[in-house]
Amino acid sequence: MKPINLSEKQALFTKQWHPHQIAVVDDMQVILAKVQGEFVWHAHENEDELFQVLKGTLYMKFRDRTEVVKEGEIIVVPKGVEHCPSTKDGEEVQLLLFEKQSTAHTGDVVHEMTQSQYPKI
Amino acid sequence: MKPINLSEKQALFTKQWHPHQIAVVDDMQVILAKVQGEFVWHAHENEDELFQVLKGTLYMKFRDRTEVVKEGEIIVVPKGVEHCPSTKDGEEVQLLLFEKQSTAHTGDVVHEMTQSQYPKI
Repeated sequence: MKPINLSEKQALFTKQWHPHQIAVVDDMQVILAKVQGEFVWHAHENEDELFQVLKGTLYMKFRDRTEVVKEGEIIVVPKGVEHCPSTKDGEEVQLLLFEKQSTAHTGDVVHEMTQSQYPKI
Repeated sequence: MKPINLSEKQALFTKQWHPHQIAVVDDMQVILAKVQGEFVWHAHENEDELFQVLKGTLYMKFRDRTEVVKEGEIIVVPKGVEHCPSTKDGEEVQLLLFEKQSTAHTGDVVHEMTQSQYPKI
């Protein structure tokens, strides 16, 4: 029941594509991530996933299009929908995600970027 | 699957203490609210509630203390904990909340401020 400062938490880590859990809300978790370049195409069969852009511009690729998500915007990726978060021009983008604690990092895909556990900060 | 701009959504309504739903994530909802002054003491018996301050400073009163939640910060109020969101000095504060869709506005308390349904914007 203490305030959590998002910028201060973001400053605690540097590794990209490596989510850190900052809070739990019922069976959901709030995680922070720094991303740059292109992630892995994947879907979460049973969980929706909310992305909030805290800094920079996220290019959320879907199979049929790309959505540009700017600072101060959110996007919800529904369960079952393949997506690939990415950034452009070497920009590091800071994200907050809201998703079930059961959500696997890269869904049903296993990749060298896959994290099975998120550190708590 | 479209980006949602938080500022643009906030500009769509003026009524204070009147949450508007902007997105759904599994059984949770994302809501926006504008608040000023003092709300109602209440608790949510079965649901945690996350507040993110988008603009201004929120004073989250608990029975034993007040937590100051600034812009760019979040606070999670655990289920069962009495709380009273408030602001100071006539400031209007803009909030984003994450909570279950089942969460009652003022918990087990019925008050003239209580909204039983949140408009979708």
